[in-house]
Amino acid sequence: MNKQYAPGLHLLIDFWGADQPTDLHQVEFLLREAAEACGARVLEVRLHSFGDAGGVTGVAILAESHISLHTWPEHDFIALDIFLCGDRDAAPALKVLKSGLSPKHVNVSEIRRGHDN
Amino acid sequence: MNKQYAPGLHLLIDFWGADQPTDLHQVEFLLREAAEACGARVLEVRLHSFGDAGGVTGVAILAESHISLHTWPEHDFIALDIFLCGDRDAAPALKVLKSGLSPKHVNVSEIRRGHDN
Repeated sequence: MNKQYAPGLHLLIDFWGADQPTDLHQVEFLLREAAEACGARVLEVRLHSFGDAGGVTGVAILAESHISLHTWPEHDFIALDIFLCGDRDAAPALKVLKSGLSPKHVNVSEIRRGHDN
Repeated sequence: MNKQYAPGLHLLIDFWGADQPTDLHQVEFLLREAAEACGARVLEVRLHSFGDAGGVTGVAILAESHISLHTWPEHDFIALDIFLCGDRDAAPALKVLKSGLSPKHVNVSEIRRGHDN
């Protein structure tokens, strides 16, 4: 058991006042673009729509973990995660997501996974 | 924009010294059992194997967000997330995951999503 091994960084990203996507193809393109921006390999993207008023939910499953997206249009809110194992830089993926969704306010929590903190 | 609205609690769970699952059907059963334990509705479970020595990765996409699992058998490590919107209690799901994977050491970080913290 090597508690100090760090598989990678997990960003928990909250967007308020962002564009609320309803087109699943658009969301898939965005998640793939975000993964590509940090050199991650997409195994598949799976998305579900709750209808235009209900938001979308889903995930890009990566060889390096995942990027997830859940929207709450009724609360003007989107929750995104970027979890990348290894030493990949998540910043380019975050930049893509910001550029694609144009949030007015952003909160990011960084959690180092695999540390015993 | 209502920054104080809290869509839900996100648990980031690190397991060390756990059983390392290789059977995707077993993992799917575990994730569905965890979701069921907290009353969440599974939209689908998508899993990928990197071979017995390479671990498994995937997610249960929920109507209430997601439960993800990524294993690193080479580091004796598993990263799990339980993200449940609303006021659902994630504790029963965590209990199921612990019972199913028998970790020797557990670290849990609780992040309230949707708060401006």
